Amino acid sequence: MSNTGVKVWAPASVANLGCGYDILGLCLEKPGDEIIARFSDKKGLRITLITGSKKQLPTEVEKNTAGVAAMKMLEHIGESDRGIDLEIHKKMPFGSGLGSSAASAVGGVMAVNELLKRPLTKREMLPFAVLGEQVADGSYHADNVAPSLLGGIIFIRDNATLDVHRIPNPKGLQVVCVYPRIKILTKDARDILSDQTTLKNTITQTGNIGGLIVGMYNADLDLISRSLNDVIIEPQRAKLIPGFYDVKDAAMNQGAMGCSISGAGPTIFAICPNTFVAENTANAMQLAFKKHKIESHIFISPINQNGSYLF
Amino acid sequence: MSNTGVKVWAPASVANLGCGYDILGLCLEKPGDEIIARFSDKKGLRITLITGSKKQLPTEVEKNTAGVAAMKMLEHIGESDRGIDLEIHKKMPFGSGLGSSAASAVGGVMAVNELLKRPLTKREMLPFAVLGEQVADGSYHADNVAPSLLGGIIFIRDNATLDVHRIPNPKGLQVVCVYPRIKILTKDARDILSDQTTLKNTITQTGNIGGLIVGMYNADLDLISRSLNDVIIEPQRAKLIPGFYDVKDAAMNQGAMGCSISGAGPTIFAICPNTFVAENTANAMQLAFKKHKIESHIFISPINQNGSYLF
Repeated sequence: MSNTGVKVWAPASVANLGCGYDILGLCLEKPGDEIIARFSDKKGLRITLITGSKKQLPTEVEKNTAGVAAMKMLEHIGESDRGIDLEIHKKMPFGSGLGSSAASAVGGVMAVNELLKRPLTKREMLPFAVLGEQVADGSYHADNVAPSLLGGIIFIRDNATLDVHRIPNPKGLQVVCVYPRIKILTKDARDILSDQTTLKNTITQTGNIGGLIVGMYNADLDLISRSLNDVIIEPQRAKLIPGFYDVKDAAMNQGAMGCSISGAGPTIFAICPNTFVAENTANAMQLAFKKHKIESHIFISPINQNGSYLF
Repeated sequence: MSNTGVKVWAPASVANLGCGYDILGLCLEKPGDEIIARFSDKKGLRITLITGSKKQLPTEVEKNTAGVAAMKMLEHIGESDRGIDLEIHKKMPFGSGLGSSAASAVGGVMAVNELLKRPLTKREMLPFAVLGEQVADGSYHADNVAPSLLGGIIFIRDNATLDVHRIPNPKGLQVVCVYPRIKILTKDARDILSDQTTLKNTITQTGNIGGLIVGMYNADLDLISRSLNDVIIEPQRAKLIPGFYDVKDAAMNQGAMGCSISGAGPTIFAICPNTFVAENTANAMQLAFKKHKIESHIFISPINQNGSYLF
């Protein structure tokens, strides 16, 4: 098996989940990245192939999120001289707010770990995947990487120390992601945010983050729905997405439990109680974008309980 | 039994719990109020006796928290003409930050409800108790009333709609409250707070409130301890309590899991993993106040799982 290599799936993720700016993320089944690792006779890690990316991603290991993540991990376990070739097959849009670079970073550590017969646990791999994503993103944040790697809904008390915790989620929830064909640079999505907020909004936001977590533990769909409400980030970033409130209204009118911006956008996500509501919601959101003359792509996925996996 | 009346215990409570300003509260076993209700031949509700209060609490029903709470409830159930006498025996300090007026309001509804053979559930009584406390406090807040009535640790997503939820707590936790003999007016404690905060602090606070809730559900004492950290309110209100940081350091050095201001203060609370740590913590906190020439009173209590009760 070592000679033929391993293939892993590294899924997309929805960061923030409305009220959980920087501290919540959810793992999708799809889209995502396929990453293949094979032993090579040449010394060291190489990226031999990248497919599926219109944007030219760098094949230099030290500039590539998957490459850096894998290399940091190999250094940690004392295997940095090991000859390993990586192939990255991107099966998700880049710059969509669905954690594309996080998926690649997760795929990098997962593929190498599987190839080497699992020297590390997933939790042990997490810091290296976060370092990998940092190459693309500039910040040390786990809100996409941790859910993509570990699965489920991940709560992060503190990013600097990777104080991450998986919280339960009610069965059957479906996540609709509608990716409009517009460009938002992560830098612009950051720069638009005020570094100040009001005490009143902070109280509301702490109430909602707490409500969301309590709702997840208690499988209380109504409480989750009341809590999926971001009074701080969404009102500022909505300006970057033409038609945002029409799309959100369309989702809520179809019975979505909540709807907000996925990560830094422009993808808009909606949490739905079942597949029927999810399909109606997705179509209504796409139609609402169309009225603003914006084409969009729909992804519907349950919450991925497994995170990244060998397949 | 109706002729001899009923006696209820309405316990003190710790609001905010550090990072949960306005949205978290915890019920103590003691101190608290004893409230007695008896049927009377005279029409309507009266307050016939108040003991244990240095401050002259009003005996007019419409100015007294217990009176208003009981009256609002009696109006709701169509019994406002019923002849009922209330006695209020305060067994806790007033203006201490331990929810004294909330306890009286809770005692008012509880005593009347027991006298009338429980026409309402505790959850149904909650709005009337909150209205009662509003007479003293001016604001419609459940962060003392809800824990005092319902028991345990109460999370409040939204005060206006009383979206309250009990969250679990690990067995064995002890709450140390050290009440220094200084005066803080709730108004001053409010006025000192800026109505602005930073996005950075809001992220930290949402992380900590989430961490505290996850830690309570998972009985993860280390996570609870890391989360018991208020970066927004405590730094502003600490100025009102001479020696605050020395008292807090003394608590943490004895193994307390966290230490902050109870409600609007001046009482300082510490959460401890067991009674041994709690006793050492309480003594160290009292000593630290003494070094600032401030006398103080110690209360040590487990988390009261029952809230207010008939006895």
